[in-house]
Amino acid sequence: MAEVTAAEAMALLAGVPVGRLGFHHRGLPAIRPVNHLVEDGQILIRTHFDSRLSAAVAELLPQGVVVAYEADDLDFEARAGWSVVAVGTAQPVTAPDRLAHFEGRPDTWVDQPMNKLIAIQPEIVTGFRIEPAR
Amino acid sequence: MAEVTAAEAMALLAGVPVGRLGFHHRGLPAIRPVNHLVEDGQILIRTHFDSRLSAAVAELLPQGVVVAYEADDLDFEARAGWSVVAVGTAQPVTAPDRLAHFEGRPDTWVDQPMNKLIAIQPEIVTGFRIEPAR
Repeated sequence: MAEVTAAEAMALLAGVPVGRLGFHHRGLPAIRPVNHLVEDGQILIRTHFDSRLSAAVAELLPQGVVVAYEADDLDFEARAGWSVVAVGTAQPVTAPDRLAHFEGRPDTWVDQPMNKLIAIQPEIVTGFRIEPAR
Repeated sequence: MAEVTAAEAMALLAGVPVGRLGFHHRGLPAIRPVNHLVEDGQILIRTHFDSRLSAAVAELLPQGVVVAYEADDLDFEARAGWSVVAVGTAQPVTAPDRLAHFEGRPDTWVDQPMNKLIAIQPEIVTGFRIEPAR
């Protein structure tokens, strides 16, 4: 098990289409898998207006909400892979030019309208690799 | 995107060796991938004494700490898969007979001593499947 640098961790995260957002809402921890993209050091995710995640972010505006975002690529057979976690502040993207810039992105796997864009500014990024046992 | 029952969600979770624990510690959200097993409706994970996770659980004894545990199997190519989340109370396992029963389990992928066993009693279990787009 070896740690990776923050830069390497962000590159690994950027190379996969999905991760898991950890946050708190009304006293309970929650985790949601979401699609993401990375641009200019920010993690952008898309959700829909009535989701618990959107509510959690909206309730704590304008300061945003501190979240943990995890991505990994784990090989069950080889018992190896990598995992990275970025802790930072999540805020809705509301500026029309930013919304236009990201229109249709990140592409999501689900067929419901994902009309809320959230940007996470990572503050603490950590990660590790697990190499296959010899 | 289709919801699954709590029973189906627990069966899916039990069928994979790894998941992601979401918790709070000292005001910050955290996510850690861990190995797990499911027995008698409980999720058992193994960590080491000096980890942030163990500290988070130990500080809140004897009430335990409410955590979210997520497992999934996502196919990046097919853009499909499943994800389940169990929210419940995590507590260290300290009874000698229980520790003996779970000795060496769950098997972990990392090569450091994972000498702390934690049991999660799920209270709210949800999950969904994403079918490949046609």
